[in-house]
Amino acid sequence: MKRNIQFISAQTITPDSILIREDALVVEEPLEIRISHGAGAQRRRLSVAVTMRTPGEDDDLATGFLFTEGIIQDARQVLAIKWLEENTILVELQPGLQVDEARLTRHLFTSSSCGVCGKASLDAVQTVVCYFPSVGWPRVTREVLFTLPDTLRAAQTTFETTGGLHAAGLFDAGGKLIWLREDVGRHNAVDKVIGAALRDGSPLPFRDNLLMVSGRAGFELVQKAAMAGLPLLAAVGAPSSLSAELAANSGMTLVGFLRGERFNVYSHPERISR
Amino acid sequence: MKRNIQFISAQTITPDSILIREDALVVEEPLEIRISHGAGAQRRRLSVAVTMRTPGEDDDLATGFLFTEGIIQDARQVLAIKWLEENTILVELQPGLQVDEARLTRHLFTSSSCGVCGKASLDAVQTVVCYFPSVGWPRVTREVLFTLPDTLRAAQTTFETTGGLHAAGLFDAGGKLIWLREDVGRHNAVDKVIGAALRDGSPLPFRDNLLMVSGRAGFELVQKAAMAGLPLLAAVGAPSSLSAELAANSGMTLVGFLRGERFNVYSHPERISR
Repeated sequence: MKRNIQFISAQTITPDSILIREDALVVEEPLEIRISHGAGAQRRRLSVAVTMRTPGEDDDLATGFLFTEGIIQDARQVLAIKWLEENTILVELQPGLQVDEARLTRHLFTSSSCGVCGKASLDAVQTVVCYFPSVGWPRVTREVLFTLPDTLRAAQTTFETTGGLHAAGLFDAGGKLIWLREDVGRHNAVDKVIGAALRDGSPLPFRDNLLMVSGRAGFELVQKAAMAGLPLLAAVGAPSSLSAELAANSGMTLVGFLRGERFNVYSHPERISR
Repeated sequence: MKRNIQFISAQTITPDSILIREDALVVEEPLEIRISHGAGAQRRRLSVAVTMRTPGEDDDLATGFLFTEGIIQDARQVLAIKWLEENTILVELQPGLQVDEARLTRHLFTSSSCGVCGKASLDAVQTVVCYFPSVGWPRVTREVLFTLPDTLRAAQTTFETTGGLHAAGLFDAGGKLIWLREDVGRHNAVDKVIGAALRDGSPLPFRDNLLMVSGRAGFELVQKAAMAGLPLLAAVGAPSSLSAELAANSGMTLVGFLRGERFNVYSHPERISR
């Protein structure tokens, strides 16, 4: 596993002091994700993304990214994951898997900066999401929700050192943390945790899990959660208009501002039992 | 100007109450940025990005984005900005401006998810950044830096309502706020504020300005600040390893964890006077 902390010399300045010391920064490096797909002589390689991420658990990141982008539907479609060079990973896909290169290129072309094309993606989500959470999976109590932020924070290791990491945790309906992943990018943290669960053999949809994120609940995070059929996404921070809309349309309970013994529910409150 | 707040019905849940009320969410919508370039019969249109942004000041966003991506070097290269349809904006560029479509497409292709390719971009920055801040522009006192977060927060309007917006402010060396922009995406907030300054006729480089952001100082924000020749970037949150490295190499003073009367300096502390 690569180092996710780097020490550099920094000064801490207050009104009457300058302290020169070593400060721990979260490592941010590019990861290029390539896939190989097709069978026999038709087999080819394709670069699908470069993302700025914190090194570590890159197999989870690549698997989760390919899944939440709709390129694979299942971790078993991944035959192997290999390093081609530093910061370039190759995901070898099952020969039988259909990959629509044109859609992929078009989609990625429109995914510049921080965000994806909402309109295009809203359409895309509706064509590729296979799961619509029913009210019954699972019901969650407010008391369990109150405990999630402390559990997530207590399990974070790198954040404590650097203050620079987003966390994503998959919990069971009783509030037990099952998988935790951290990354400098919030989208990567979610891809990593979904990828970890998939690679561990978790059956889809993730109907018995809750996803908790340390930051805000933007559109892309709701989209990724919807791809896994997650019935509930909780965030420490605020949602956006589009994330609330997508959660409502996806059958997902969206919880925001989960801090202390208090939270807001923006969609499908019927899943939270009294 | 489009609305940047949307009200939706939400529930606020505490241990012993459920309050049903209208909650204000920050609006998040896609913006597609297209350019027209070339002269005469060679003039053509090209889609360069779709970004999830908060509507409002989209002219600033488009101008700032094209500048920080190295597509334009000056706001005067923009002849006009027009709406083609809702959420699609066309920036008409000077006929004489050279646009490298291949580089653009390649660059955007690798800009998926939240982040750009660090390696590619580090190279790109070194080829397109024209400004290397000298120690002399400007010198800043620690007392001025201490005041920036409160000034920024006091000027934010939408954040107070929704809790969902990043802010970016351009200050003078005396701590006076000159331009403020807010957006659901931190990169967009920076593009907007740089675009606003450019459109207002600020000469490049922005040698007398300080940039303050409400979140973390990731690689992309340092890159955007470097494009404008900004001598100092301050953030409420943490930097990453790569942002500290780029700031050091770009002659920029990088300040993190600026809260209360305290901050950390990660590069070029000589610009902060005692």
